[in-house]
Amino acid sequence: MRCDRMWTDARLATMAPSPGGAGLGIVEGGVVASRDGRILYAGAAADAPSFDANETIACEGRWITPGLIDGHTHLIHGGDRAHEFELRLQGASYEEIARAGGGIVSTMTATRAASEEQLVAAALPRLDALIAEGVTTVEVKSGYGLEREAELRMLRAARALGHCRPVGIATTFLGAHALPPEYAGDADGYIEAVCTQMLPTVAAEGLADAVDAFCEGIGFTIAQTERVFAAATALGLPVKLHAEQLSNRHGAALAARHGALSADHLEFLDAAGIAAMAQAGTVATLLPGAYYFVRETKLPPIDALRAAGVPIALATDCNPGTSPLTSLLLVLNMGATLFRLTVEECLLGVTRHAAQALGLSAEIGTLEAGKSCDLAIWDIERPAELVYRMGYNPLHARIWRGH
Amino acid sequence: MRCDRMWTDARLATMAPSPGGAGLGIVEGGVVASRDGRILYAGAAADAPSFDANETIACEGRWITPGLIDGHTHLIHGGDRAHEFELRLQGASYEEIARAGGGIVSTMTATRAASEEQLVAAALPRLDALIAEGVTTVEVKSGYGLEREAELRMLRAARALGHCRPVGIATTFLGAHALPPEYAGDADGYIEAVCTQMLPTVAAEGLADAVDAFCEGIGFTIAQTERVFAAATALGLPVKLHAEQLSNRHGAALAARHGALSADHLEFLDAAGIAAMAQAGTVATLLPGAYYFVRETKLPPIDALRAAGVPIALATDCNPGTSPLTSLLLVLNMGATLFRLTVEECLLGVTRHAAQALGLSAEIGTLEAGKSCDLAIWDIERPAELVYRMGYNPLHARIWRGH
Ligand SMILES: [Zn+2]
Ligand SMILES: [Zn+2]
Repeated sequence: MRCDRMWTDARLATMAPSPGGAGLGIVEGGVVASRDGRILYAGAAADAPSFDANETIACEGRWITPGLIDGHTHLIHGGDRAHEFELRLQGASYEEIARAGGGIVSTMTATRAASEEQLVAAALPRLDALIAEGVTTVEVKSGYGLEREAELRMLRAARALGHCRPVGIATTFLGAHALPPEYAGDADGYIEAVCTQMLPTVAAEGLADAVDAFCEGIGFTIAQTERVFAAATALGLPVKLHAEQLSNRHGAALAARHGALSADHLEFLDAAGIAAMAQAGTVATLLPGAYYFVRETKLPPIDALRAAGVPIALATDCNPGTSPLTSLLLVLNMGATLFRLTVEECLLGVTRHAAQALGLSAEIGTLEAGKSCDLAIWDIERPAELVYRMGYNPLHARIWRGH
Repeated sequence: MRCDRMWTDARLATMAPSPGGAGLGIVEGGVVASRDGRILYAGAAADAPSFDANETIACEGRWITPGLIDGHTHLIHGGDRAHEFELRLQGASYEEIARAGGGIVSTMTATRAASEEQLVAAALPRLDALIAEGVTTVEVKSGYGLEREAELRMLRAARALGHCRPVGIATTFLGAHALPPEYAGDADGYIEAVCTQMLPTVAAEGLADAVDAFCEGIGFTIAQTERVFAAATALGLPVKLHAEQLSNRHGAALAARHGALSADHLEFLDAAGIAAMAQAGTVATLLPGAYYFVRETKLPPIDALRAAGVPIALATDCNPGTSPLTSLLLVLNMGATLFRLTVEECLLGVTRHAAQALGLSAEIGTLEAGKSCDLAIWDIERPAELVYRMGYNPLHARIWRGH
């Protein structure tokens, strides 16, 4: 059988579902073959058809996993918040920081002031850091423009990232991220603008693959979130939600009722929310980097999520305010160390379950025939090393769409 | 004035002590000149003598700090503990892990089984990860051999690292790290062997720059530690100590009484220990990676250390059991996020104070004339970015001994 490329003498963690449901899909003596950017075969060499490959790469026993997926980022933004971080460590209050121009408004201002090209240029080093660790798909949200043109510009910049680097970009419209100063005291009015002035253009121009909102005391109410979800659904866009990060607003249950791809953060998620997510097949995307950076002490309800069979994804939440983090490998360690996820749960969280959280289960997330040939090839002796180490990158090679 | 190389148009964080004692020693419009591997001048371009440089490097406004110093590592060791980590996440007890061959004995066994060349080869990727982030000096301990030949081999391997890479290596003999199985029930006998069979050879062969011990319930008693310190002092070797990590054994005060360069870990340090360290000039080397990895909740007494004026250093504690960490930049973030150290304290902790913890204040740790020209040149807008970000490496270039 003709194929373009073939990786031989590899150990595979296919991450594909097994009959029992558990496990990393480990195949010793494995081979992967690609054609036209897709996986033609991934499995035991002993069971493989005979391939006629244009190129054969001997992996010398290295491990191959699916390319990693970072399913929740705010990679596009202007400025940084390093000075705010510094002031806070010196004991500055939130008020003093706000007076010094800190907080989300500072990111909004810097983002609004940046051109599309500037937004792309600022994001590329962050994207490159992810790519260097074997990431092949990155979700990128808007949400720092908070006005029509700036939100559209963020999404265009996010799409442009996918033309600058060999990486899949999934975009998410997060107009309902925070209330811009222009609408102070009129959150309903802003949500109206999000739904009637922004979302239709976002959808018409195909700028977003999903729609997100921040349902929280410092964000938007359940009713406002529902309004956004209804508008998104009417335009045929799937939804997801920043839910239960700082308090329990029952956002996850709302998201599940709207068939959300994922509910994210979830430190304050309750049993009803878990049950709703389980029933709807909504992925729990956990963000241990933000948990760590803001020194949260309330853990997401891992045991209950596990017991209910809710798929768990892990992501960087890369953002300047609460998670200036560009290492998905470090997220794996944080998932294990801080959240006590198992090695298997951590690795599924950045492959199969992350794909599900993006609605891309048919395309990426496992080593299975027909999916995009996105591979990470590692200099490790066992997959647990990817979770165990901190600040160490054992990536040997990275393949995106067969190259 | 003739010089070999000159770095111009830079912003400097010299980390040199200022009259007030505080600050990063910031110089805008700075220049560094080197001759014969040493700093000839570091300061404002406006105040600089006229140089005739063989090579001039325009830094385009980038920041230069001293090369970073990782002052506490166990970089040389055989094997890893990834499988133990995996089992623990699955709920395995310490007993089950010990039965599965885990724990420090597994590292001892793997280390004893490795040749010097194998130890070097295993450590190089870890060293390279540190170097890639601008580290120019690394302390490396023995302590997994726990028998004469294996301890000597570890120290020779550590020294060899300095011949394989452009990096300064400071070696520390840590024979009193744990009780080897051969001496079960006879800790005093093992300490006798450390002092009479190992230390004299270590000193005679010039294999160690300092001597360390692990004073702890699961390590050695105060009396045994004192025996090691006395033997080291008799041989002219400075001492340091793993102290107060899991309980308060008053090790730091003992170390201070022996003029120790540093006492390390210190989560359970008390006021008397702090006072003794302040008086002796013993550096507090904090290891937030181990604190994080073992999920410690007792914080070292930062405020009291600060109030007493004890210099604080930060290090990776890179080791397979409790801190498989090879990013000193991540340690900076952990120092700030977990320990609430300021940006200034974090950066001093991996430069000037780390140099002091190694007894190398005259050689490295600041940008001052006469010191080794070890530089890290960064693509950042302000030094706080080095502490604020997680999993991001903005190193532009790294210079060791002028090259
Ligand atoms: Zn987010
Ligand atoms: Zn140590």
